[in-house]
Amino acid sequence: MKCSIPKGTRDFLPSEMARRNYIFDTIRDVFKAFAFEPIETPSLENLSTLMGKYGEEGDKLLFKVLNSGDFMKDVDFSADYRHVAPQICERGLRYDLTVPFARFVVQHRDQIVFPFRRYQLQPVWRADRPQKGRYREFYPCDADMIGSDSLMGELELVQMIDEVFHRLGINVTVKINNRKILAGIADIIGAPERLTDITVAIDKLDKIGLEAVREELRERGLSEAQVSALDPVFALDGDAKQKLESLRSLFADSATGLLGVDECSTLFDMITAAQPRCTVELDLTLARGLNYYTGAIFEVKANDVAMGSICGGGRYDNLTGIFGLPGVSGVGISFGADRIYDVLTELDRFPATLEQSARVLFINFGTTEQAYCIRWATELRRRGIPTLIYPEAAKPKKQMEYANRRGVAYVVFVGDQELADGTLTLKDMATGQQLTLPAQEAIDRLS
Amino acid sequence: MKCSIPKGTRDFLPSEMARRNYIFDTIRDVFKAFAFEPIETPSLENLSTLMGKYGEEGDKLLFKVLNSGDFMKDVDFSADYRHVAPQICERGLRYDLTVPFARFVVQHRDQIVFPFRRYQLQPVWRADRPQKGRYREFYPCDADMIGSDSLMGELELVQMIDEVFHRLGINVTVKINNRKILAGIADIIGAPERLTDITVAIDKLDKIGLEAVREELRERGLSEAQVSALDPVFALDGDAKQKLESLRSLFADSATGLLGVDECSTLFDMITAAQPRCTVELDLTLARGLNYYTGAIFEVKANDVAMGSICGGGRYDNLTGIFGLPGVSGVGISFGADRIYDVLTELDRFPATLEQSARVLFINFGTTEQAYCIRWATELRRRGIPTLIYPEAAKPKKQMEYANRRGVAYVVFVGDQELADGTLTLKDMATGQQLTLPAQEAIDRLS
Repeated sequence: MKCSIPKGTRDFLPSEMARRNYIFDTIRDVFKAFAFEPIETPSLENLSTLMGKYGEEGDKLLFKVLNSGDFMKDVDFSADYRHVAPQICERGLRYDLTVPFARFVVQHRDQIVFPFRRYQLQPVWRADRPQKGRYREFYPCDADMIGSDSLMGELELVQMIDEVFHRLGINVTVKINNRKILAGIADIIGAPERLTDITVAIDKLDKIGLEAVREELRERGLSEAQVSALDPVFALDGDAKQKLESLRSLFADSATGLLGVDECSTLFDMITAAQPRCTVELDLTLARGLNYYTGAIFEVKANDVAMGSICGGGRYDNLTGIFGLPGVSGVGISFGADRIYDVLTELDRFPATLEQSARVLFINFGTTEQAYCIRWATELRRRGIPTLIYPEAAKPKKQMEYANRRGVAYVVFVGDQELADGTLTLKDMATGQQLTLPAQEAIDRLS
Repeated sequence: MKCSIPKGTRDFLPSEMARRNYIFDTIRDVFKAFAFEPIETPSLENLSTLMGKYGEEGDKLLFKVLNSGDFMKDVDFSADYRHVAPQICERGLRYDLTVPFARFVVQHRDQIVFPFRRYQLQPVWRADRPQKGRYREFYPCDADMIGSDSLMGELELVQMIDEVFHRLGINVTVKINNRKILAGIADIIGAPERLTDITVAIDKLDKIGLEAVREELRERGLSEAQVSALDPVFALDGDAKQKLESLRSLFADSATGLLGVDECSTLFDMITAAQPRCTVELDLTLARGLNYYTGAIFEVKANDVAMGSICGGGRYDNLTGIFGLPGVSGVGISFGADRIYDVLTELDRFPATLEQSARVLFINFGTTEQAYCIRWATELRRRGIPTLIYPEAAKPKKQMEYANRRGVAYVVFVGDQELADGTLTLKDMATGQQLTLPAQEAIDRLS
């Protein structure tokens, strides 16, 4: 029987687990330092909770789970498969952490302390076409603060981004925009209803250049006058503060735009005062997740590696509205562990110590020695020192090979002399030096 | 829209997460101290990997995932649903951690260092009827050592069980049996082919008593002579050592039985020498997982709570055989996190400190004070101290209520005086005492 796993899924070997856990642990530690609290939701949600929340494309990409028992009873299989699927599948796999979080907040609102700060590190599943860096099972790391519209939320998320990437040793730039500024831009060219068309086009400025963006705007039906009206926006110059001041005059007739400038301006002041170590920029082309973001929009890129966004997020004013709890504002971010893994690999910046899943190996010379080794290995293990005893009295060469492959720091030898004297002989695998010590003293040294 | 989750699944609130993580972390720490290495496998496996591995009942309880796109193409829906399901579902959800582990070992045998010691903490899914303590998504914690038939494996698993429950503060009894001893019993009554019938009946001795076991054996077709031949087994007396010696004479004509006695006897000697803190007993009625265990069988029960098994395992000689790699012996255990949770709840033995997801809260008196608070909160957070700043200048009463509900140890006040003097005023929430200190000194005290 041939062994394989489904397309787009992955096994993780111990060496990969060590690196992945290093990323997860770092992110989790920062979430904890900012007093976010963990929650978990089921992998299976009712399909009715998920359908219609991610657009038509999302509905297609949801993994649906077949009903147990006779799923075919009373089902009309002559209908289109899209109509049959929800009849034979009541449940689907979690598609992101945001919709289940919204459901969770509404369902448990009486048990939650607001403002509620939650983090969640659980896999999600999408029936996307697998490709480099895109998997069908992957692990977003989300933190959200819900139940307050204070810009302190935005500030703390930027500080968390700063702290995570500082700890990981990755230089990043946080790009910030505001949905209300984008709305203001649509306002001033007299096309507020074309917000999506405009932002989709502007979003491509980096990739295709100004002329192509203009062309796309024309193709999307904007008049020449409207396209030209965008010129002052593209011409904005200076740092965030200066750009925002220029926008303020451009937005004289857009209340929404002015509100966006105010929010963004206050946020940049707060960020500057907090002295983050990363670069923070205003990026008016940023339109990520426009569907549900209503205020700030964030995106993070690594400075020294060509890679897409490694973290993103924003403010949403009505996430729980879909589940019947309106008026709860929140702000959240999501770290992309898989891309961060790729960045750290490319920068070769994983700590060297991650590989060491065993610190000490006791060489096994036979039953009597083994019993003596067990006693002292137990002592080390109770102290939490990762310790191995080779399970049988194999040839010393084989045992030493195993020690090398497991990357232990010390090998311990116990022969007649050690048994008689109550000692242990340690070999430092890095230097090759050997040292015989009274057993208890040896244990202290190994700890 | 009503919010709900599928039957048999659960949301975990922060307080539950803290308790669950305490259990997972304890188990993981012990696995690490014994130098087991983590792996992870995909939640989705090819259905062909899973089907036929868990018996007919298991095939029914597998969650099957509907193929993407037009799953109905070329499928004959007039067939029985059991035949249709595998045609419209190529993938299924992980049902346990054992079969995926076997697949993993075979698939990655060239990248693995044998003897391979792996642990795995991931959810599994079963379409079981939900009931108290039984969920459709649950979290076994497995450790296995594969590629050695040394009894050191069995010993280390018992030591790990001892260490986990010692750290958790649960008094347990580890019950040990051996498949070969059960085979020996079947041998001596002249019914080696009735091994399953015999063990299923004997397994009930505790619950239904000796007479009912005899009756069941008769019902299962054993002759009166065969049932009587079991009498000496039921009459065994004394500790493990003594029982094993009696079995040795009973098994004079069963080579398998004698092998079982030898293995068990050596293991008990090793365990005694290792001085575990838990109770370890020989239990000849233990028949758990007989389908694939070939040597030692373990089961763990809490001494002070009436609850089913909270951990179990055993030796299997041919786990990877189903995937084409025969002759690899292994031994493993699985901790049941959900039942351990229930035991700790009933014993009220969760550490009190688990609830504290925030240590410090800075009260927010307005913009100027807030900026000063951000500076010092950042200092605490960089040190890893879970710290909150109330996000807006709400009424102090409301902020103090939030501090109480989040269970912080200290509240920090910053007013005009503190701003002018460069100090922080700390309130110890347990004692109510207040103290004003130079800011840096206050931060050191809070750390």
